[in-house]
Amino acid sequence: MSKEITSRQQDYSQWYSDLVLKGGLADYSAVRGCMVIKPYGFALWENMRDALDKMFKDTGHVNAYFPLFIPKSFLSKEAAHVEGFAKECAVVTHYRLKNDPNGGGVVVDPEAKLEEELIVRPTSETIIWNTYKDWIKSYRDLPLLINQWANVVRWEMRTRLFLRTAEFLWQEGHTAHASKDEAVEETIKMLDVYATFAEEFMALPVIKGVKTVSERFAGAEDTYCIEALMQDGKALQAGTSHFLGQNFAKAFDVKFLNNANQLEYVWATSWGVSTRLVGALVMAHSDDQGLVLPPKIAPHQVVIVPIYKGDEQKAQIDARVGEIMNELKQLGIRIIYDNNDNNRPGWKFAEYEMKGVPVRLAVGARDLEKNVVEIARRDSKEKSTVSLDGIASYIQNLLKEIQQNLFDKAKAYRDSHITNANSWDEFVKLLDEKGGFIAAHWDGTAETEEAIKEKTKATIRCIPLENKQEDGVCVLTGKASTQRVLFARAY
Amino acid sequence: MSKEITSRQQDYSQWYSDLVLKGGLADYSAVRGCMVIKPYGFALWENMRDALDKMFKDTGHVNAYFPLFIPKSFLSKEAAHVEGFAKECAVVTHYRLKNDPNGGGVVVDPEAKLEEELIVRPTSETIIWNTYKDWIKSYRDLPLLINQWANVVRWEMRTRLFLRTAEFLWQEGHTAHASKDEAVEETIKMLDVYATFAEEFMALPVIKGVKTVSERFAGAEDTYCIEALMQDGKALQAGTSHFLGQNFAKAFDVKFLNNANQLEYVWATSWGVSTRLVGALVMAHSDDQGLVLPPKIAPHQVVIVPIYKGDEQKAQIDARVGEIMNELKQLGIRIIYDNNDNNRPGWKFAEYEMKGVPVRLAVGARDLEKNVVEIARRDSKEKSTVSLDGIASYIQNLLKEIQQNLFDKAKAYRDSHITNANSWDEFVKLLDEKGGFIAAHWDGTAETEEAIKEKTKATIRCIPLENKQEDGVCVLTGKASTQRVLFARAY
Repeated sequence: MSKEITSRQQDYSQWYSDLVLKGGLADYSAVRGCMVIKPYGFALWENMRDALDKMFKDTGHVNAYFPLFIPKSFLSKEAAHVEGFAKECAVVTHYRLKNDPNGGGVVVDPEAKLEEELIVRPTSETIIWNTYKDWIKSYRDLPLLINQWANVVRWEMRTRLFLRTAEFLWQEGHTAHASKDEAVEETIKMLDVYATFAEEFMALPVIKGVKTVSERFAGAEDTYCIEALMQDGKALQAGTSHFLGQNFAKAFDVKFLNNANQLEYVWATSWGVSTRLVGALVMAHSDDQGLVLPPKIAPHQVVIVPIYKGDEQKAQIDARVGEIMNELKQLGIRIIYDNNDNNRPGWKFAEYEMKGVPVRLAVGARDLEKNVVEIARRDSKEKSTVSLDGIASYIQNLLKEIQQNLFDKAKAYRDSHITNANSWDEFVKLLDEKGGFIAAHWDGTAETEEAIKEKTKATIRCIPLENKQEDGVCVLTGKASTQRVLFARAY
Repeated sequence: MSKEITSRQQDYSQWYSDLVLKGGLADYSAVRGCMVIKPYGFALWENMRDALDKMFKDTGHVNAYFPLFIPKSFLSKEAAHVEGFAKECAVVTHYRLKNDPNGGGVVVDPEAKLEEELIVRPTSETIIWNTYKDWIKSYRDLPLLINQWANVVRWEMRTRLFLRTAEFLWQEGHTAHASKDEAVEETIKMLDVYATFAEEFMALPVIKGVKTVSERFAGAEDTYCIEALMQDGKALQAGTSHFLGQNFAKAFDVKFLNNANQLEYVWATSWGVSTRLVGALVMAHSDDQGLVLPPKIAPHQVVIVPIYKGDEQKAQIDARVGEIMNELKQLGIRIIYDNNDNNRPGWKFAEYEMKGVPVRLAVGARDLEKNVVEIARRDSKEKSTVSLDGIASYIQNLLKEIQQNLFDKAKAYRDSHITNANSWDEFVKLLDEKGGFIAAHWDGTAETEEAIKEKTKATIRCIPLENKQEDGVCVLTGKASTQRVLFARAY
């Protein structure tokens, strides 16, 4: 099985596709640019979603659901937003099919043309702020802290499973506040939630920062982001949190009576992460043998494979494994037992290695006599023989250790791939030969940012929060600069 | 607050809308036929979804996600399916907008026309069976027990919040089996899951039955359903489970190698329930003062309202309530404390009555001196004064009692509204004057079924499972019949 995976060195991009397809995470579909999320991939997403959802609720947010469709005219109401979002999207123009009068299936009924076309939501600021108009009258209605889990569609030309698909799943928070300070505070709070989630659940170290003007969300005053580094040295934006100022309130005329009885426009934020995170997770930890999943979100944390000859041995092992499983389940550990007769243990080992199950137990008849099992870690591939006494708490600790090890490893890699560049030659050389984040001085203009992007395909990933201020000169133009920003080639 | 609700007697339909809108469950949207599910309504749906999801997983199902869009040609592949589903649906014809050359926002870019139109899924059999074709090769790949939580769109002309909307949320199970028997067994198993869910969580008694040929799902060999009765005597189909035979396997050429090494078409089922259940829930239990929600799925099971004068009393009550809340939370009870200064206790009482919170505690300073609280039940409106000693387990039991009481009450109403009709006059009179299910003999033809529907708007809701066999004559035609079937006017 593992032989079928292209190695990272041979072809990183193919390695990624192999993992996603052969690891059972997703599949291509008959619809251009849309993917099928397979059960194993969906179970992973569910664990991520549930952890995030709890964090949202713990910070006072509630879920709601807004329409899939957005009237075309809504997109034009916020000037910057329409430029960013109204272009590549799915447009519903008709609401009926009819039998083809010439035979051959169904055709669009020309008489069922919509008066105004509907856009399949690429993001929901417009439809939501149009609704908030009815919900917000006074400061007592604020803050409104609402999140939505939904599918969105952006008509991407070049798609890649999880990383860039026409339809994807995400959550989008849309909050409304009585003051600028409160909205800015919310923006940063949710950025922190994302960073904590990425680091604690996905074992993915991230850099928190703010985007440059050209990389801002269309309609935002400020876009904050978390940026992660993949094993090929490319960056990946793992989540964004936007301070929207009063832009959408003005576009949809959402005012509130403040506590001084004056009408004011409402302040807004929005923030989102998507199934793209699954792609980030795959690329951050996996190896040439398959997926490597962090225990906290792995669909199965432990797999038990029996090693037996004949029914009698199997029955003995089944019974003892039943006890072990009960112990582990009581600790909330997600465990499966694969005693399927159709496959040999070697095949199963390769299969669960491919699927990235963090811990594998091999249980043989002779092991049971000695009251031990063989435990293999997916992350380090270390094997050890462990006593069955206290096995549950041993595994519980091992899962924590693996989670921490994955984070430490990813962080060491990331930290060693943030490199200062002090000249243009050095910048280009680092980008081509080492990759990762290049910390370089930049003159602060969109023109220079664009020129660097055109020359190297590197973009400014972010200006890190609490960035060190130091005098320097722009790597491209030599003009004065007060801080380094992080450049990288990115997904 | 409660004064604003239209009474059931005055206008049942308006009463329902009032509850949904003023109870904070949902709102109209700017998009024709689409609704906004508000946070309180969504929390209710989440509780329903989570309970169902657990039942699906406990019966061996896994979740996955398939594309929102279906290529138009797919709909034509199953002959009956296209008749039932390909008509009123949202059609995507273009994938890009551009700036209007005449100014004034954006227009559809005529150059971005899709070669084949995409349909926003009205149900996913076609796209899923097209995918299963790649996943199923041998009997070892079966059964495939997959469920999807998703949004679907059916272009309804007359819409009502939750009951009938263009876009709605649902789950759709799509399973694949190696034998007919196994597929039929799955169909019935999921019908039972739905019935158990409706009765145990929603406190909604249902009748399990099978649909007549004309009421079958488009593409099914048999459609099973659960039918519930609303307070106005109209029936509501609360869930369906379809035995699809080999129809979709044949349409999409999905064959498997059986264990005798022969190629066979795969057997299929599909089953679904939707946000429509929220509408059923509202209509089944609520009264003229507002919503009445069953404790098991109510977003808040208990609300505590403090009765105080001045900050000192409030602080005392806050402290003691904090202790009570901890006790209740430890039992997993969902509880909120409304000590908002802006509203008076009377306003709060009416508000939580409107919202259907099952249990309300009023806590006054004098009560605390006596170590008691006043407890009000939403279902019976009974109030009692109860000692704070053992309050948590008292409330835990009370919630169970309320859950049971709601079911018993709904069942008594339902049972008293299943009436035999032995002549056409009786049939019409019962339908007009009493409503509910009319058990009547029917000659078994689609013509008679249609004629009865045209004359009375009553449809055959189902032929109950394990129906009593008895000789009789059709109420309309007088032809011979072997069993009574259940007629009703329905949502």
